[in-house]
Amino acid sequence: MDDSRDDADADASPESSAGRPPTLTEARERDADDPLATLRERFFVPDGELYMDGNSLGLCAADAAAALEEAVEQWQTLAIRGWTDADPDWFTYGERLGDRLAGLVGADPAEVVVGNSTTVNIHTLVGTFYDPDRGAEILVNDLDFPTDHYAIRAQLRQAGRDPEEALRVVESRDGRTVDEDDIVAAIDDDVGMVFMPSVLYRSGQLLDVERITEAAHDAGALAGFDLAHSVGVVPHRLSDVGVDFAVWCHYKYLNAGPGAPAGLYVNERHFGVTPALAGWWGHEKETQFEMRHTYTPAPSAGAFQIGTPPILAAAPLDGALNVTEDAGIEALREKSVALTDFLVALVDDRLPDCEVGTPREAARRGGHVAVEHPEAYRISEALKARGVVVDFRTPNVVRVCPSPYYVGFEDVYRVVEHLEAILDDREYERFETRGGGVT
Amino acid sequence: MDDSRDDADADASPESSAGRPPTLTEARERDADDPLATLRERFFVPDGELYMDGNSLGLCAADAAAALEEAVEQWQTLAIRGWTDADPDWFTYGERLGDRLAGLVGADPAEVVVGNSTTVNIHTLVGTFYDPDRGAEILVNDLDFPTDHYAIRAQLRQAGRDPEEALRVVESRDGRTVDEDDIVAAIDDDVGMVFMPSVLYRSGQLLDVERITEAAHDAGALAGFDLAHSVGVVPHRLSDVGVDFAVWCHYKYLNAGPGAPAGLYVNERHFGVTPALAGWWGHEKETQFEMRHTYTPAPSAGAFQIGTPPILAAAPLDGALNVTEDAGIEALREKSVALTDFLVALVDDRLPDCEVGTPREAARRGGHVAVEHPEAYRISEALKARGVVVDFRTPNVVRVCPSPYYVGFEDVYRVVEHLEAILDDREYERFETRGGGVT
Repeated sequence: MDDSRDDADADASPESSAGRPPTLTEARERDADDPLATLRERFFVPDGELYMDGNSLGLCAADAAAALEEAVEQWQTLAIRGWTDADPDWFTYGERLGDRLAGLVGADPAEVVVGNSTTVNIHTLVGTFYDPDRGAEILVNDLDFPTDHYAIRAQLRQAGRDPEEALRVVESRDGRTVDEDDIVAAIDDDVGMVFMPSVLYRSGQLLDVERITEAAHDAGALAGFDLAHSVGVVPHRLSDVGVDFAVWCHYKYLNAGPGAPAGLYVNERHFGVTPALAGWWGHEKETQFEMRHTYTPAPSAGAFQIGTPPILAAAPLDGALNVTEDAGIEALREKSVALTDFLVALVDDRLPDCEVGTPREAARRGGHVAVEHPEAYRISEALKARGVVVDFRTPNVVRVCPSPYYVGFEDVYRVVEHLEAILDDREYERFETRGGGVT
Repeated sequence: MDDSRDDADADASPESSAGRPPTLTEARERDADDPLATLRERFFVPDGELYMDGNSLGLCAADAAAALEEAVEQWQTLAIRGWTDADPDWFTYGERLGDRLAGLVGADPAEVVVGNSTTVNIHTLVGTFYDPDRGAEILVNDLDFPTDHYAIRAQLRQAGRDPEEALRVVESRDGRTVDEDDIVAAIDDDVGMVFMPSVLYRSGQLLDVERITEAAHDAGALAGFDLAHSVGVVPHRLSDVGVDFAVWCHYKYLNAGPGAPAGLYVNERHFGVTPALAGWWGHEKETQFEMRHTYTPAPSAGAFQIGTPPILAAAPLDGALNVTEDAGIEALREKSVALTDFLVALVDDRLPDCEVGTPREAARRGGHVAVEHPEAYRISEALKARGVVVDFRTPNVVRVCPSPYYVGFEDVYRVVEHLEAILDDREYERFETRGGGVT
């Protein structure tokens, strides 16, 4: 398996790397050789489903359920004392989870904390670090997930700026991907902040975080990233690269449950600043309960916590991280690349009416693949009716995510078989046309 | 019991209402007559403890645990389909909980939603409704819970104002309570917003929401409230009174678990405004998944949701509300007043070295009582060592909360017996001096 992956990495076309169309036999062989194949046994996988939606909502691991059960039991038996006496204690829950996550994003433990929602974290970080003196404009792209724009526009308005003027948007050339050359070219002296996703939510393109950060810094701008679609499946080196700040959620690849509290990273050079959304849970811990009316920020990313953390929503993350740590982020990435390579090769071979909207080079791809077809919505519905769980994304994307945590090569093979049947028989025509879905 | 409460309500001194010091026999009689006495059986009460801290962290009801277990099971079996197919569905979880809460705060269902933390809700509501054209200053008081000031100061800074100038602080005359006359007198044309707690977190004073709102409106200002220490134990009439907006948490009297998502109310006359912290979960639901980059607010308080809601932290609220609804907020308030009356009378009778820092008139009191003593910290520690769970609040308050959900009159009697023993024997001197605690 190592060999096939090395080949795939070295070659832009996964199909040609194998030299022949992928087969069921090959899928089974690769599953048999997969050192992570047993991870699946640690998850509750919905009966009879091929679950290809782990980048929308990751599945529940037994460890996640157990950690939650323990937290509930501690609420029942310790009540208020849980804040100090629970194991792990609730008072430093966000910081401690940050410590565990630091390795996944390549940061110092003090630079990472868990709390709030991703959107709230964008608000407080953009609100804190936006400084018109660096450059009045914030650079984003037109394929961003909408909430990022809602938050940035709102923060620009809060700062007295007109978003129509202060939001600079890099336009995609093909509607699928954003060219890093275009991003770099758009960074001039008027740009004070660049905020980009690591992986585009629709096409799955993986952006070059290092290059964008360097270009931002060269122009005197700050660089922030939304890692929602990469954390837990793509390793990051945020500190090494010098990224200024980042946000992400834990309910996708990190399997922490619906609406689990989000994560954030702040480079240590920014420690000590008062957050735009200051709150008592970001106060210096030692004096938090002196109840002073003036705010002293914690000397860490912990300052960007705001209110009391939702322990029962955070506990499953504590459990789910056991699985990620046992597997190792490098091995998860390796398997993820192999699975998406395999999927792309199968689409090329078996689905002539579909296009792959995701970059074919592994280094430019996150953990999911955009299978494009004009009837994507109805195809998604037909897949769901067959027990294949995918996301439709407007206007023409069937988003297929073979999460390396619980999806195997044969699963991917079967998904393409289902797609082939749905397309060959125009089975999708039995379904109604409409938009929708939940990321 | 009805009689005694009516007396207490009519008379500022609960002791004199009974005409004699409260006794253990009376406590037992009142428990026997208490129509809410059986509620306690629905909660996990920590073994061997007298839990007087339900205004910091309410206890876990069996219904809360069951609702959470169900949500976890739906995550395990439905995964992504939980957003649409779970019962209750996750997509409208915040709105639906808002519907259930509306009666508790006296609002129209569309005016209430569950989401975010209390502090984040203060940020987005103050940030949205602060308008220097109404008056550049925001009126607060010097006994507020600190996070309220952190958020308001931060929002003033976001709006380009110096909090030292734009935050007007009503000063307490006695360090315990805030005189409504002083609040009303402080509202002039420079004040654009009044933001007050319904119940002060330390002394337990219940402010006159209606009077403050009217005074604010008379001066052309908006009125917002933090109901953290009253929701679930004191009925409110927010819509009738015309309050502009309010926030609260659910982990105190509403027993929803540590860090449960918060609640907020926005008067319907403000529907349609774009929130300061806009996010995709506050977008008009029907078009949320069209993934447009321009934000259309939901035509309800739901617009003030921000990110994806933490379902596993919200589910216990859904269960815990069964208990509140079965009891009825009026009956809960009635029992709460009777319990705190009883406690105040016992403190007067048995603890000559302590003072009651809470107003004696029931109409000016929330659900807890501040028992003051210069050695409050060490007394709190001594109480905890005896299994009596209270909060210390700096500098001199033992905060005792006989939650009407699971505390009885004999419990209150026993707490005062413990206090008496600790004071008579100076038992508290065996404990070290230090500040701390978790609200």
